Amino acid sequence: MTGDNGSPAEHRFDEASPGEPLHRVVVVGGGFGGLQTVKALRGAPVEVTLIDRNNYHLFQPLTYQVATGALSPDEIGKPLRTIFRGARNVRVLMAEATGFDLERHTVFLRPAVAEPGPQTVRYDTLVVASGSNYAYFGHDEWRQSTHEVKSLGRALRARAGILAAFEAAELEPDPEVSAGWLTFVVVGAGSTGVEMAGQIAELARDTLPGDFRTIDPRAGRVLLVEQADRVLPGFPPSLSERAARSLGELGVTVLTGRTVVGIEPDHVQIQSADGAAEPVAARTIVWAAGVAASPLSRALAEASGSDVDRAGRATVQADLTLPGHPEVIAIGDMVRVRDVRTGIARTLPGVAPVAMQQGRYAGRLIRRRLEGRTLPPWRYFDKGKLATIGRTRAVADIRGLHLGGFPAWLLWLIVHLAYLIGFENRLVVLVRWSSNFCTHGRGARWITDTSELSREDARVPLVGADAGE
Amino acid sequence: MTGDNGSPAEHRFDEASPGEPLHRVVVVGGGFGGLQTVKALRGAPVEVTLIDRNNYHLFQPLTYQVATGALSPDEIGKPLRTIFRGARNVRVLMAEATGFDLERHTVFLRPAVAEPGPQTVRYDTLVVASGSNYAYFGHDEWRQSTHEVKSLGRALRARAGILAAFEAAELEPDPEVSAGWLTFVVVGAGSTGVEMAGQIAELARDTLPGDFRTIDPRAGRVLLVEQADRVLPGFPPSLSERAARSLGELGVTVLTGRTVVGIEPDHVQIQSADGAAEPVAARTIVWAAGVAASPLSRALAEASGSDVDRAGRATVQADLTLPGHPEVIAIGDMVRVRDVRTGIARTLPGVAPVAMQQGRYAGRLIRRRLEGRTLPPWRYFDKGKLATIGRTRAVADIRGLHLGGFPAWLLWLIVHLAYLIGFENRLVVLVRWSSNFCTHGRGARWITDTSELSREDARVPLVGADAGE
Repeated sequence: MTGDNGSPAEHRFDEASPGEPLHRVVVVGGGFGGLQTVKALRGAPVEVTLIDRNNYHLFQPLTYQVATGALSPDEIGKPLRTIFRGARNVRVLMAEATGFDLERHTVFLRPAVAEPGPQTVRYDTLVVASGSNYAYFGHDEWRQSTHEVKSLGRALRARAGILAAFEAAELEPDPEVSAGWLTFVVVGAGSTGVEMAGQIAELARDTLPGDFRTIDPRAGRVLLVEQADRVLPGFPPSLSERAARSLGELGVTVLTGRTVVGIEPDHVQIQSADGAAEPVAARTIVWAAGVAASPLSRALAEASGSDVDRAGRATVQADLTLPGHPEVIAIGDMVRVRDVRTGIARTLPGVAPVAMQQGRYAGRLIRRRLEGRTLPPWRYFDKGKLATIGRTRAVADIRGLHLGGFPAWLLWLIVHLAYLIGFENRLVVLVRWSSNFCTHGRGARWITDTSELSREDARVPLVGADAGE
Repeated sequence: MTGDNGSPAEHRFDEASPGEPLHRVVVVGGGFGGLQTVKALRGAPVEVTLIDRNNYHLFQPLTYQVATGALSPDEIGKPLRTIFRGARNVRVLMAEATGFDLERHTVFLRPAVAEPGPQTVRYDTLVVASGSNYAYFGHDEWRQSTHEVKSLGRALRARAGILAAFEAAELEPDPEVSAGWLTFVVVGAGSTGVEMAGQIAELARDTLPGDFRTIDPRAGRVLLVEQADRVLPGFPPSLSERAARSLGELGVTVLTGRTVVGIEPDHVQIQSADGAAEPVAARTIVWAAGVAASPLSRALAEASGSDVDRAGRATVQADLTLPGHPEVIAIGDMVRVRDVRTGIARTLPGVAPVAMQQGRYAGRLIRRRLEGRTLPPWRYFDKGKLATIGRTRAVADIRGLHLGGFPAWLLWLIVHLAYLIGFENRLVVLVRWSSNFCTHGRGARWITDTSELSREDARVPLVGADAGE
């Protein structure tokens, strides 16, 4: 696990600190879980090292809006260094954690900027919060041929793909080929899939119609394919029904009980429950199905001699620590949590509130231990679920209270604005949303020119990798 | 010039238009010149086809702010289709103009989205406004190993390079290598070079210091290298002096009378007037020197049997038409204009006002001709020059009135906000600038992960090319 060129350089905190060495906490991942962990440790008598291969915290619930031209990438990405600039006991390393040596309390790093070589950082307590990716039903090659919205880069690429499809249709003389450009398939009808399908439909029906001269964007089709028998399977059935109705009103074709079994450049194969596969001419596929935990989860499971589930999630104990390694905490949608009473490993919803609550717990646990105190096992407080479908349409399940339509949408709006980090971002997003709402427009429609972004020069190459941050 | 597979598909305007065919105007390039041309033709009895390989109009004077984290890309790029959605006589094609057949009144296109194949569009009047790139002193390979801010894609890449340099320095154990990461060389001290140097210095001195734990960003060095004997050579000498003083106050090292003669991964060679070259350890180079007119300018010159200047600019007549081709108009910094009295070809400053005034003239000329009337030769009305150096620092030359410091900076601010297209963008930029001003912060610091943006799939490949607009 070390670098090729001898032993990797070790990262130490400012060596000049007087007195006895502080307890070293290393947090892997600056998503919702990692961020809350570090926030909870601000000012504590510990040295915190936050490792992320990106230099920003991403407000992931809104990446789909970057993909559909409603927001610009910087508006939902806040520099990690800025968040913690005042916290002198926190340092940020822009690097990818590639693995661990749990015996030696060491994390292996690959700096996200190419030079220098591999490095290490040592911990007294390790918190791993490196999230998950989508799972491609055994077809990992589909990750390149479809779009997803887990990261800002991929969201911009999805935007380019979706908007360029309309541009290609406008330039295409063959109406049959053009129809393929105007057909969008969204795979997976969880919140992200539902949101993407709704937004693409609104783009085609409300935003773009006046913009083209040859094609009519309203002829665009959006197919939402879901393996389960209803959309938003995590929601109560009545809200799934409501969401399906809203999607229908927006012009989305909901195909439940189906799976995508083939993806070709100009069509997809959609299989129904009876096993028959049907080809559908479509050139733009958005993937929002399945869960593949960060590869670091498997590394943790192996180190602790336990198994992972089908999604690659390790199981942590009720206090979120790794079995046999009380100094290692793992949180977020990369792990399952063993129930303290039943002993059964429980998969929690892969949403921000779970990760945030676990992050805060992790921070508190570390503080308590240093004080020689204990903390009762972690418990999830489920405040509710929210999914938005389009302009003024949403569904909400607030501890049994079911909301739909405008009230749910307003709630969604307030919650998302409130949780965005940074006053500036909140204000900018408010301006954009107000403008989008009033004009049915989408101002953020820059299509990336990838030739301009590629960096063949290798002077400042940014290493990109899929593994967890 | 036609496609490989037989004759390319021809693009016609909506065939269903009744009555006699309208005069067809084709405008190549949606920059300041092309945009004003098309705006001036809204509602005129002509069919306008606007061709750009990007889907947005870029407010280029602010791209340097995207490169330095002050603005997000969408905030200065407005979709061309949105600008002209109400103009039913205007259509937009997202394609690259690759050449012309002036005899057959034909423009050759390569759609910016890969499929379909090459296409053509025919014109009665052609307006070419495809701008210019930087010139690399005969070292075209430097374009890949340096950063520039002519386009949004390159501005984001420059941002990634500049911010990643600080990240690399933070991770670098060798102080000598680290110092190379913290040295930035800006080549060319025109407005863009001066602005970039000032912004990088402010980034290092005001924005980033609290963000790092190992390095002190204030130790960062910014060298501004200019061949001429003063910065802002297009400005009056007294303002150049004032700008140089402001740059010095910001910590920029101004090196006039020097040129960059070598660029290696870890250093540059800077040559002084006496011919001695000195190596400077620096890993991040921003290029803002020289002018290379769009290759389409040479194509026009060849077609009209005339020469181009050293920068590759064709010469147009006083009415901006190509000699021998009154139906072809070329505008902006890709051409020189022959003075109507002296007959001398004149190079105008490569700034937005020149292109905008020429664009408006081109639109008016086309309208007048259709009415059987004439128009006096084009004349440049020079409203003045503005360059900003940093927070509250700028210089302005308003028709002989010289301003510096805060008044010039305020004027710069108002002018740039006023000329930004779209109320939403203006408001968002105002929010960002206010926030940046109050906090010394730069909220738009997302570093692009290029592996996420690359599109190896070839499903919706976006063709990127340097030529054209």
